[in-house]
Amino acid sequence: MSTYSTIRIEESGVAWTVTINRPERQNSIDGLLLQELHSAFDRMEEDRQCRIAIIAGHPGFFCTGMDFQEAVGQTGSNDDGEKADAFIRLLRKMSMTSKIVIASIDGKVNAGGIGLVAASDFAVATPQSQFSLSEAIWGLLPACVVPYMIRRTGFQPAYWMTLSTLPVSAAEAQAFRLINEVSADPASVVQRLMPRLARLDGQTIVDIKAYFRKMWLVNDEMEQVAVKEITRLMSEPRVRENIRGFVEHQRFPWSPR
Amino acid sequence: MSTYSTIRIEESGVAWTVTINRPERQNSIDGLLLQELHSAFDRMEEDRQCRIAIIAGHPGFFCTGMDFQEAVGQTGSNDDGEKADAFIRLLRKMSMTSKIVIASIDGKVNAGGIGLVAASDFAVATPQSQFSLSEAIWGLLPACVVPYMIRRTGFQPAYWMTLSTLPVSAAEAQAFRLINEVSADPASVVQRLMPRLARLDGQTIVDIKAYFRKMWLVNDEMEQVAVKEITRLMSEPRVRENIRGFVEHQRFPWSPR
Amino acid sequence: MSTYSTIRIEESGVAWTVTINRPERQNSIDGLLLQELHSAFDRMEEDRQCRIAIIAGHPGFFCTGMDFQEAVGQTGSNDDGEKADAFIRLLRKMSMTSKIVIASIDGKVNAGGIGLVAASDFAVATPQSQFSLSEAIWGLLPACVVPYMIRRTGFQPAYWMTLSTLPVSAAEAQAFRLINEVSADPASVVQRLMPRLARLDGQTIVDIKAYFRKMWLVNDEMEQVAVKEITRLMSEPRVRENIRGFVEHQRFPWSPR
Repeated sequence: MSTYSTIRIEESGVAWTVTINRPERQNSIDGLLLQELHSAFDRMEEDRQCRIAIIAGHPGFFCTGMDFQEAVGQTGSNDDGEKADAFIRLLRKMSMTSKIVIASIDGKVNAGGIGLVAASDFAVATPQSQFSLSEAIWGLLPACVVPYMIRRTGFQPAYWMTLSTLPVSAAEAQAFRLINEVSADPASVVQRLMPRLARLDGQTIVDIKAYFRKMWLVNDEMEQVAVKEITRLMSEPRVRENIRGFVEHQRFPWSPR
Repeated sequence: MSTYSTIRIEESGVAWTVTINRPERQNSIDGLLLQELHSAFDRMEEDRQCRIAIIAGHPGFFCTGMDFQEAVGQTGSNDDGEKADAFIRLLRKMSMTSKIVIASIDGKVNAGGIGLVAASDFAVATPQSQFSLSEAIWGLLPACVVPYMIRRTGFQPAYWMTLSTLPVSAAEAQAFRLINEVSADPASVVQRLMPRLARLDGQTIVDIKAYFRKMWLVNDEMEQVAVKEITRLMSEPRVRENIRGFVEHQRFPWSPR
Repeated sequence: MSTYSTIRIEESGVAWTVTINRPERQNSIDGLLLQELHSAFDRMEEDRQCRIAIIAGHPGFFCTGMDFQEAVGQTGSNDDGEKADAFIRLLRKMSMTSKIVIASIDGKVNAGGIGLVAASDFAVATPQSQFSLSEAIWGLLPACVVPYMIRRTGFQPAYWMTLSTLPVSAAEAQAFRLINEVSADPASVVQRLMPRLARLDGQTIVDIKAYFRKMWLVNDEMEQVAVKEITRLMSEPRVRENIRGFVEHQRFPWSPR
C-alpha cells in the first residue's frame, strides 16, 4: 500500500473512508492533495470489494478550498492551470466512478470544498457545519465548482452563494439540496444507507452516471470553460495582489494599507 | 365508444378520468396499457368539451412500472424497443396535449409510473403514497423517466432516487416537487383547481406547452437517447437473467441461488 | 440629473433605490417605463460609488405587468415587438450589470413584474405580497419572463404558475426560490446584506454574471425566441379582442357578452 501525506485511507470491506488530512492548513487543497485524491479514487476503482467511497474531513473543517499559500508561492500561470485541470478532472472522476461517493461533513466547507460535496452522490453534514463560496472576496469565482453546484442545487443558490460570499448553515444547505441530510451522527446515516447501496452492481452505477451526464448541462466543453476562466483570473495582477495581501498580512482587499 | 381492458374512462363534462385498471398485475405497464393510454389521450384530444385529464390508479398502487412478466416472455429486443418508444411518445403526448393533465395518486408509484407523474401538469397524492425508482436493482435505469423527472425536480432528486432505489414518502416527494400537493382527499384538490383550469383556452395550453419545451432540455434527440439506452440494457443477458430470476423465483440479483 | 415620470430614483451612497411610480396604472409596464428603467440602469452603471440597485414598487403593488390600456391603443405589431425587445434587454441588463440588483417587494407582482423579480440577484418580499402569471387568461404567455423564472425556480414552478394563472403567497414563492426572503421589513434585510455586498469589486460582479450565463440555458437565441413568441401572440386577433374586452368593458374572455 502506498503511503499518503495529505489524506488517510481506511479500507473496511465495502466502504472505504478517505479523510482529507491537512489540519495544519485547514484542509485546504494543494497540488499534492489533488494528486493523492486522484490516486485514492483510482485505487478504489480497481478494488472489486469496495462499493462505497466516503470522503471526510477533520472535525471543524471538511475542506476550505485552494491553498492560498501555495498559490502565492507559484510563479507562472502554468501551475494554476494545471491545478484547475486536476481539480475539474477529480470532480468528473468522482461523478463517473463505479463507487457510490458519500461526503461526510463536520465543520467548514468553503470554495473548492463545495465542489467535492456537490460532485458527491450523497452528502450528510452535522448541524454545526457551514458552507460558503468566498472566491469573490479575492476577485475570483468558483469556476470549477459552479457546474456541479448548479447540477445539485439549481441555478439560484449557486449564484447567490457566489455573489454574496455569505456562509449558509447546514439546514439551509439541505433546503436547497447541496446536502441530502443533516445529522449529529453522519456515520449512522451512512450505516442506514449501506445495505441497499452495497448491493448495486458497479456496472449499473457506471451506466447511471454516464446516462445522467447526457441528460444534463455538464459536459467536456463546460469543464474546459471552467479551467480557462479560473486560470485567467489567477493570472490577473489585482487578484494575485489580493491573495498575497491576505497570505502575508492577513489583509482583506478592502482593508486600508 | 371503444372498450378498453387495461384502463377505465369516466367522461364527466370538462374533466375525464382515466383509471389504470390492471389490479391483478399491480397496475404495471404492458404493451396493451401503452396502446390504450395513447388511445385515451387521442380521444380526449378530439373532444372539445374535455379540458382536464385526470390519471388515476387503484387504492394501493397508482402504477408500478414495466410488467416484468410480459418482458420475460418476449423473445427479441424489438419488443422492448417498441415499448420504450411507445412509452416515451406517451410522456411527450401527455406533456404536449391541449388538456391539463392531473395525476391523482393513492399508493405506490414505481419506475415507469414515476414517468406518468413527472409528465403530468399537476400531481396530488395521499399521505400514504410512496415513490421509488427500482430499476437499478435489476441492472436497468429509468431511461425514459429521467428527462421528465429532472424537468420536474431538478437533477439531484432524480439522480439520487435512481441510484439509491429507496422509496420516498409523499411529503418528501412534495418537498422536491415531484408532486404538487399532499391531500387525504385528492378529489377535493382537483375540484378546487377546476374552475380556473377549465377556463383556459386549449390553444393557449398548446402554446404554453410548446413554448416551455423550447425553454428546457427535453427534446427529440434526448428522447431517442432514452429509448436507445433502455433497449440496449434490456438486451443484456445479465439484466434479462435478473428479471427472469425475480419473475420465476421471486429471487433478487443478490440472493443466493 | 434627468427627470423621470414613471420612476423615482433616490441616490444614497452605495445603494440607489429605483421606485416604479405609476400608481394610477397599478405600476404596470408601458413603453416609457421601459425606457426610463433602461436609463436608470445605464446611469447606475456609470456611477462608480453605486454598488447596489434596489428596485421597489408602491405599497400594494410592486409591478403588475404589461399596461393593457397602452397595448390596446397601439395599431401595429411593431410596437409590441419593440416593447418585448426592450423588456428582454432590460432583464438581460439587470442580470449582467456590475451592480447587485435587489428587488424589494410589498404587494402584488404579476406577469412582467415577475420578470423583474426573477432577473434580480436577490429578492425580499413582505408576507402579504402575492405573485402571479396571469397571461394565459388572455391567450398570452409570459414569454420573456419564463427563461429568467426557470433560471431562478427550476422548470416546474414557472410552468405551473403559467398554466394555472393562480396567485401564490410570499411563503410559497420563497419555498421555490422566486424570492430569497420574506420579511415585514425588507429595508432591514437590505441593511443586513449591505456591508458584505458593497465590498465586492464591480469587475468581479461582471465576471460572475458573465460566467453564470455560460453555465446555464439563457442565451441570445432564447431571448430572440421569447420576443418572437410574444410578438406573434400579441398580433393574434383573438388575443387583442380578449385584451380589448377587458380594458373597455372589464370583461373576461369567458364572460357572456
